[in-house]
Amino acid sequence: MVYATSDGKAAERLRVGMVGGGRNAFIGAVHRFAMRLDDGIALVAGALSADPQNAAVSAAELGIAPDRAYADYREMACAEAVRPDGIEAVVIVTPNHLHAPIATAFLEAGIDVICDKPLSTTVADAEALVALARAKQRKFLVTLNNTGYAMVRQAREMVEAGELGRLVALHGAYIQDWLTRPIDADGQKQAEWRTDPARAGQSAVLADIGVHAFNLASFVSGLEAEEVAADLFTAVPGRRLDDNAHVMVRWSGGVRGTILASQTSPGHYNDLSVRIYGDKAGLEWRGTRPEELRFTRYGEPTQTIVRGGAGTTAAAQAVSRMPAAHPEGYIEGFGNFYRDAADIIRAHRSGLTIDPARERLVPGVVDGARGVKFVAAAVDSNAAGGAWTPARFG
Amino acid sequence: MVYATSDGKAAERLRVGMVGGGRNAFIGAVHRFAMRLDDGIALVAGALSADPQNAAVSAAELGIAPDRAYADYREMACAEAVRPDGIEAVVIVTPNHLHAPIATAFLEAGIDVICDKPLSTTVADAEALVALARAKQRKFLVTLNNTGYAMVRQAREMVEAGELGRLVALHGAYIQDWLTRPIDADGQKQAEWRTDPARAGQSAVLADIGVHAFNLASFVSGLEAEEVAADLFTAVPGRRLDDNAHVMVRWSGGVRGTILASQTSPGHYNDLSVRIYGDKAGLEWRGTRPEELRFTRYGEPTQTIVRGGAGTTAAAQAVSRMPAAHPEGYIEGFGNFYRDAADIIRAHRSGLTIDPARERLVPGVVDGARGVKFVAAAVDSNAAGGAWTPARFG
Amino acid sequence: MVYATSDGKAAERLRVGMVGGGRNAFIGAVHRFAMRLDDGIALVAGALSADPQNAAVSAAELGIAPDRAYADYREMACAEAVRPDGIEAVVIVTPNHLHAPIATAFLEAGIDVICDKPLSTTVADAEALVALARAKQRKFLVTLNNTGYAMVRQAREMVEAGELGRLVALHGAYIQDWLTRPIDADGQKQAEWRTDPARAGQSAVLADIGVHAFNLASFVSGLEAEEVAADLFTAVPGRRLDDNAHVMVRWSGGVRGTILASQTSPGHYNDLSVRIYGDKAGLEWRGTRPEELRFTRYGEPTQTIVRGGAGTTAAAQAVSRMPAAHPEGYIEGFGNFYRDAADIIRAHRSGLTIDPARERLVPGVVDGARGVKFVAAAVDSNAAGGAWTPARFG
Amino acid sequence: MVYATSDGKAAERLRVGMVGGGRNAFIGAVHRFAMRLDDGIALVAGALSADPQNAAVSAAELGIAPDRAYADYREMACAEAVRPDGIEAVVIVTPNHLHAPIATAFLEAGIDVICDKPLSTTVADAEALVALARAKQRKFLVTLNNTGYAMVRQAREMVEAGELGRLVALHGAYIQDWLTRPIDADGQKQAEWRTDPARAGQSAVLADIGVHAFNLASFVSGLEAEEVAADLFTAVPGRRLDDNAHVMVRWSGGVRGTILASQTSPGHYNDLSVRIYGDKAGLEWRGTRPEELRFTRYGEPTQTIVRGGAGTTAAAQAVSRMPAAHPEGYIEGFGNFYRDAADIIRAHRSGLTIDPARERLVPGVVDGARGVKFVAAAVDSNAAGGAWTPARFG
Repeated sequence: MVYATSDGKAAERLRVGMVGGGRNAFIGAVHRFAMRLDDGIALVAGALSADPQNAAVSAAELGIAPDRAYADYREMACAEAVRPDGIEAVVIVTPNHLHAPIATAFLEAGIDVICDKPLSTTVADAEALVALARAKQRKFLVTLNNTGYAMVRQAREMVEAGELGRLVALHGAYIQDWLTRPIDADGQKQAEWRTDPARAGQSAVLADIGVHAFNLASFVSGLEAEEVAADLFTAVPGRRLDDNAHVMVRWSGGVRGTILASQTSPGHYNDLSVRIYGDKAGLEWRGTRPEELRFTRYGEPTQTIVRGGAGTTAAAQAVSRMPAAHPEGYIEGFGNFYRDAADIIRAHRSGLTIDPARERLVPGVVDGARGVKFVAAAVDSNAAGGAWTPARFG
Repeated sequence: MVYATSDGKAAERLRVGMVGGGRNAFIGAVHRFAMRLDDGIALVAGALSADPQNAAVSAAELGIAPDRAYADYREMACAEAVRPDGIEAVVIVTPNHLHAPIATAFLEAGIDVICDKPLSTTVADAEALVALARAKQRKFLVTLNNTGYAMVRQAREMVEAGELGRLVALHGAYIQDWLTRPIDADGQKQAEWRTDPARAGQSAVLADIGVHAFNLASFVSGLEAEEVAADLFTAVPGRRLDDNAHVMVRWSGGVRGTILASQTSPGHYNDLSVRIYGDKAGLEWRGTRPEELRFTRYGEPTQTIVRGGAGTTAAAQAVSRMPAAHPEGYIEGFGNFYRDAADIIRAHRSGLTIDPARERLVPGVVDGARGVKFVAAAVDSNAAGGAWTPARFG
Repeated sequence: MVYATSDGKAAERLRVGMVGGGRNAFIGAVHRFAMRLDDGIALVAGALSADPQNAAVSAAELGIAPDRAYADYREMACAEAVRPDGIEAVVIVTPNHLHAPIATAFLEAGIDVICDKPLSTTVADAEALVALARAKQRKFLVTLNNTGYAMVRQAREMVEAGELGRLVALHGAYIQDWLTRPIDADGQKQAEWRTDPARAGQSAVLADIGVHAFNLASFVSGLEAEEVAADLFTAVPGRRLDDNAHVMVRWSGGVRGTILASQTSPGHYNDLSVRIYGDKAGLEWRGTRPEELRFTRYGEPTQTIVRGGAGTTAAAQAVSRMPAAHPEGYIEGFGNFYRDAADIIRAHRSGLTIDPARERLVPGVVDGARGVKFVAAAVDSNAAGGAWTPARFG
Repeated sequence: MVYATSDGKAAERLRVGMVGGGRNAFIGAVHRFAMRLDDGIALVAGALSADPQNAAVSAAELGIAPDRAYADYREMACAEAVRPDGIEAVVIVTPNHLHAPIATAFLEAGIDVICDKPLSTTVADAEALVALARAKQRKFLVTLNNTGYAMVRQAREMVEAGELGRLVALHGAYIQDWLTRPIDADGQKQAEWRTDPARAGQSAVLADIGVHAFNLASFVSGLEAEEVAADLFTAVPGRRLDDNAHVMVRWSGGVRGTILASQTSPGHYNDLSVRIYGDKAGLEWRGTRPEELRFTRYGEPTQTIVRGGAGTTAAAQAVSRMPAAHPEGYIEGFGNFYRDAADIIRAHRSGLTIDPARERLVPGVVDGARGVKFVAAAVDSNAAGGAWTPARFG
């Protein structure tokens, strides 16, 4: 299996396995679309469902050989670790509470990890995963996938280059509508586990989407959250966890801002955004129009910078597949994450070095842990009547 | 002077005077554009400037007779109170700290008051004005003028009619860029007084624009703020007052939300917005596109309702001058305030009753006082490390 | 009656009368809103309706003295011409076919004319009016009012300054929906006369809105139409005139383009736009967002230039009443026309000169005649199977 | 090679080869992204370049076995036709003038064809290809790929279901900026062949992008062009072919409209759109925001229907991979074309029937021929001074 790497040299495809993501699952299929786009990853093994029948059928549909279709992730970790053609990395796309044990099993087996967000449901688990990945010297990447969008990377690059001047304010938001009604109580599977404290963690809305808004704001700004003051609440009576979060944040460098998350806001199917302001300029990005960056130097007209078009920077150009206004979207952004992840893991396994600047573009276990800490701090602040609460990981 | 009232009957124009608003002032001219639109108000007297020369010249330019061009508002109140053709109402368009003494003087003289926001710089003053207006049985209206926009009124009407269902979340924001640089330190007059504690009050950004966002959210929702938790800060080093405010709000009825205000955000000249969500629907209005309401029933596509077009309600139709997509703007919305204000004052002075539902559409002294209380509560919360602080007036 | 001229000097208000525009008329009220805005025009006489009772009641509502409320425009022209305080200009807001005879009567009486579009229903009438205005040395302005929008003026100024380079293509469009159904057959008054050949002229859609799109394109580009090839049609069975027009245009200077007009397009209440392209840059303006100009230099990101904000030119600034993003709209643009018209007429009557560059911003009788010629050429082309037909006036 | 078909049943991947699309080519890579997305197509052979060295290197990069990397398409057709694992279909992504000879060679060899647009450079070639495909009973699909967008399919379905009522007007446009400057004269490869009559055909702009706008309008409306009247021109001096086209169209059923195409319009990177109006409703789709459909029933507010969200129809849902507001884009739409194409070809080769309604969603050789006829008719009309010219194929 030969394919073109992103720098144009022929290479073997990265062999990966998947845990979770069988028939009727949601996010596993999205990961697979993203993996296929650049033909650099081969999905060759899986424990796609805890249900053995579903696991087998799902694997067959995906062309996974029957002997590599596992019903149990522990068995998969052991078996793949000793095969000469065993997987190099595992992709974990299960409910939140399983991320830590599964990642632990594969790290212990010497297999690199690509894990969905949130990294874990507790800060202790997150700390343990950070430590274990270091100890085992394994790559551990977290699909905080919005960092893969070309124009999000450009935003980060522009901030880093000082185009906004001294940073002042930073706002992230992730607004949805799909939990407006009590569909979790009506048996909708995706809603059901996401609002279950046993599987989702302490906060539903922050674990599910708040961490994306938080990571996006962190990624673009290069800042870390110092303290948060939070107001979490449940709009739908009887729901077991929160579905809305209003969080004020004090970021490093004296920057202030907010993170808002809601899953009960009709008019917003899936509305992720970041706004950042400095003393020279401001910029905004919105996930419903991911190809555009709205950039305004103080005293000049607002520019709409379009992926592939004028005003784009190296960071965006490096992950553009199409010319301007031939829209790339969610799968392409996710695909950028996977292309980078594959290059990073392959380089690491080959003993090669990869440009650290490029590696920093791909969220890792520490970024995942920061998100977990943010959720925990917001939950604590809310419990303490909105008191400012330390939120920095590590 | 005869003109057509908004209900089509001939009536005398309301005789008003203005305090402040001379040459080189900003907001006075805006008030005058708004007053002229429907030809129902005659500006016949003024103390347009504290500088006698400027007062005289400004009055002459506006066609005010020389004997009614005053250099002092106290003199004006006394003189106009005894003229048979004296003013029926005064319009106060001075810096914030003068609102209370000027309004007091005219109330004492038996003259109705139309006062710019914020009503006052202290809660004590606001309380005193509420009490005095009641004692003197005078109409006292506050130009929280965004309530005059047709589609803002429609939003309120839709919420009141239950189209959103049980309310859940409410967000207001007012974002500007004009104080991104230290122009207040460089002598820009408008910036200078607005950031001076002696003239602006305890908070610059909340007194100048935050009260608009707060009032807009209150008006549309019909809710009152119960508690706030605030983070106020100054982006520009050396500025005497804050220029950014992040406020979490707990509204009556268990509704939660935020009020954001910034004057240092490049990319936003003057960006006022409100978003409100219930368990049936959500809606949004934005001042940069005041003719549109974005309305989404849960489970249906988003509708863009345009002033003058399909889906508009009686409240919007009542204040539409132009057909759909012949844009009305800031002056027209302000003009709606003035048309209603004139009708209310004239009816009151004639001993007639006016539809209470219509009168509720026009912010009065209590609405102004609520804004002052909101500012004070946010300042107190910020000083107390973001603690939840009571914010309800009265 | 003293007021401030647009250059700040005190002057008498211009005395005008109105023909048409009584109760239940549409456009007359719009003209009056526009006239009032800057307080520079006094409406002191009128033949507001052909129905004497309506004329009298309408005049009374507007504060016109009974002895200057005429039932017949000829009587009004004669009477006002000899009064010492007689009107200086007449505003004609009747159905199309009456524009020429009314304008003729007032020109003959030595009174300046402000006439609604289209100037006339035939080219012969248009030629006669041009000749008569010249012979009588009277000012004759035509309310092709979209030229009053600040950002339309800026667009013209940018084109004139060469910011677009050598011009290449030019498109205008005016799309509405209000005639989608046969409301003209159902007695809707505005629809009824606009689709009546006896009152509207040879083409309904071009006379009513096509001339606006044509004038806008001409005004912004500074070009004249050389030839047109047209496809006119009637979407609604039984309608007496066309309601849609597709016109290809060859403009002076080798520029090509189209003018589209429709009154049967659901989704477009009133959608006027112009797009113009040169070898250096392109720009677009749209009447539903009149405060913005979308400007793109080839090889640079698109800029959104906002009235009152960064990147605005002198032409826009000269007619800005409000700061950026305090939206001005249709009435304000119309008001700019009226302010300029009043200054031009007053200067002319006083024997003063006015800056010719400023006067060129205000459409006159020749511009009106160009529109009439455009309509006639399109009708002829359509009748000739779409043949290219000369369209240049004069 | 097993994969999941779009109806969920396991199937063999379709074996395809590619002609053109080697290193430095543009559109070939886009086809490959699209083919990979659903994992239903295996690229196993290629004549990727006329340059043998480039052909070999390009094939190696794509994992094509050396013995199936051909330097000549004729050799490829012969060799693949006789291999037991030979390709089932060829994908042709060469310059326009080679489409017909290459397609002919593969049809003669009994291999199905997927060909880029325009089908050919002459109507005679188009007719011959239609005849040959029928004679050989081979599937022949044309990558008029915009028909693959979910919301374009929904638009078609809504029109077909009568939601717009009786159709009245239909407008298509495709506006770009990339040929604003004479880059074809400066050696830019893509620009060079597209403006070369020997390789592009009689019209550059219509062959390159005009056919997309035409096909989109035809597809959504279900109408055929009866007659066209065209104005073609070249904005850039010295260019060998046109770069702008203004075309008036008379469609079947009495519908009128326009097709505009430009490649010299700064501000539009790649702006494809269709607007269609009936007596009940209007709708618009724009390629820069492909996830949205703007739909307006006469007398109701405009709805923004979002792929994956409320108001979507079966046609859109059938090709949605992601939930609402997780944007799908150009590659996904193109991928829908390929998924359908693969299913159609596979079914045909297996002697199975496929739902004719589904097959009609995928442009075939006749649709390609209609586009060629449209281009030829426009060229003829332009040469005949814009005379109405028959444009119907067959």
